[in-house]
Amino acid sequence: MLRVGYPSTLSAELFSDFPAGVELIAIPENLDETIEIDVWIPDFYPARAIRAWPHLRGVRLVLAMLAGTEWIPPLVGPQVTVCSARGAHNVATAEWVIAAILSMLKYFPFYQEVQRSGVWKRRFEASALYEAISGDTRPIYPPVLLEELTGKRVLLVGYGSIGKEIERMLEPFRVEMTRVARSARTEPAVHAAGELDSLLPDAQIVVLIVPYSEQTHWLIDQPQLALMQQGALLVNAARGAVVNTDALVGALQAGHIRAALDVTDPEPLPQGHKLWNCPNVLITPHTGAASPEAAPNALRTAAAELRRYMNGERLKNVVQAAA
Amino acid sequence: MLRVGYPSTLSAELFSDFPAGVELIAIPENLDETIEIDVWIPDFYPARAIRAWPHLRGVRLVLAMLAGTEWIPPLVGPQVTVCSARGAHNVATAEWVIAAILSMLKYFPFYQEVQRSGVWKRRFEASALYEAISGDTRPIYPPVLLEELTGKRVLLVGYGSIGKEIERMLEPFRVEMTRVARSARTEPAVHAAGELDSLLPDAQIVVLIVPYSEQTHWLIDQPQLALMQQGALLVNAARGAVVNTDALVGALQAGHIRAALDVTDPEPLPQGHKLWNCPNVLITPHTGAASPEAAPNALRTAAAELRRYMNGERLKNVVQAAA
Repeated sequence: MLRVGYPSTLSAELFSDFPAGVELIAIPENLDETIEIDVWIPDFYPARAIRAWPHLRGVRLVLAMLAGTEWIPPLVGPQVTVCSARGAHNVATAEWVIAAILSMLKYFPFYQEVQRSGVWKRRFEASALYEAISGDTRPIYPPVLLEELTGKRVLLVGYGSIGKEIERMLEPFRVEMTRVARSARTEPAVHAAGELDSLLPDAQIVVLIVPYSEQTHWLIDQPQLALMQQGALLVNAARGAVVNTDALVGALQAGHIRAALDVTDPEPLPQGHKLWNCPNVLITPHTGAASPEAAPNALRTAAAELRRYMNGERLKNVVQAAA
Repeated sequence: MLRVGYPSTLSAELFSDFPAGVELIAIPENLDETIEIDVWIPDFYPARAIRAWPHLRGVRLVLAMLAGTEWIPPLVGPQVTVCSARGAHNVATAEWVIAAILSMLKYFPFYQEVQRSGVWKRRFEASALYEAISGDTRPIYPPVLLEELTGKRVLLVGYGSIGKEIERMLEPFRVEMTRVARSARTEPAVHAAGELDSLLPDAQIVVLIVPYSEQTHWLIDQPQLALMQQGALLVNAARGAVVNTDALVGALQAGHIRAALDVTDPEPLPQGHKLWNCPNVLITPHTGAASPEAAPNALRTAAAELRRYMNGERLKNVVQAAA
């Protein structure tokens, strides 16, 4: 019987979809003995999963509950097959991106400070308040009460399943969409990563939704930020280190761009880090995918992959095949 | 020659669409003499328009730049035809509604307080912070890091041109949409206003986008708020007095519902008003329609109506026909 280990923090009810002929083994959080399993479902939180790993024996297959799995192969080594939960978090993550874009274009963070001040003021009238919260004493830029998303030029960097979902949710806003991915494709047109620098100057909104890898480490560095137009919005729903944090802090402090970040580098962002206090930035603590549907969706995806594994079928979401 | 008076704060370039055979007269802000005009384009800000009116003579037609014109007929009297800028602000206002819904479902106002505190914490871990900002010492409700809009049950109260635009922008989120308007219709199904009370208990999100009138004054009063389900979100993009403010404050303070408001009653909301400090509310100072496209769109709409007027054609956006 195939032994499947899962974090004991997950309710057993979530596994009702799992195939018969599987022994489900709850892995407690503070493990001191070793546990023999064949298939491992690591915790949502990498730190917890990393603590559990040294106590596991016999793992041949890892079924991750996350889309981003770059930390798993180095942990488990090359002898183990690793599958992601590709697709499970598309809706929540894409919704976070639309929410972040609209929130920034409508200046909600600014108006929340107005609300907190308890004085009914629009953006121009509230320039003293703006100076106080942003440290920026220049005239308000852009000089508008809010902006429209409709018709904006969006550069989508990454065109996997979440990228496509973001594009679908942007449809009613009739944006001018440009796509970039590792390699160029057609129908729809996707540019190759090498063209990124030439595409950045035209974008009003740049959305990062690439997997993290050596190739995407610091994909957005100081030269790329400098290529972005004044006031453009950078949205990072990928991984913190896709952007060079020091360069980002510089671009934000200079008032050159705006940013909305669900991920940072380092993460968690330490207390006192200068990114917390930059002007024109919205930060959420990596909650983009963390909806109530996250665990049910991820385990449905895992159950389907496990069924394929047990039937000897080709796996769908392999990020590392066992050597 | 038809004399058209417009607020001098508007750039003359915005009138390039206006028909030939029209004399455009800029009305200065602090008027002491009287001005003879035939057609009046009142200021975006009712307070300014109301100050200008006593100095105007000869006005037969008012072309408003706003969708909400309930304040104009009482000002100008029954002998004047009044047209709204119906349609001109659909995109900006509908975008504000989507932004407000997503911002509330993703708990962005909460995470902004987390960001301000400079400590990387998710919703549960930050319960002390939540208590401090909300005054609410009960366990965090709902116990999630964020919610999904996808699949939510939305009750759209008002189904004019902005309501339809809101529905269009909600399409990618596959919400279960229920519509209410003054009178019932089919294709799509619209319920009559009399059914409102029976529809409220099922809705997770209630969007108000009705014109303000005697019939919609306090449409949402204490009994209607009580009918809403625990944790439901009330979005007001109509007029403040469509909701009974005291009852809303009660429902918010009780932790019964959440709200996102672009309009309040009274407006501007005075300093020290208890609504400012209610928990689970997002307030913007009536900026929903105030995009950079607002004036160009409104004047394009006005120009088209003026052309119909000059050609003796039937006007499109009449809210009061001259007696």
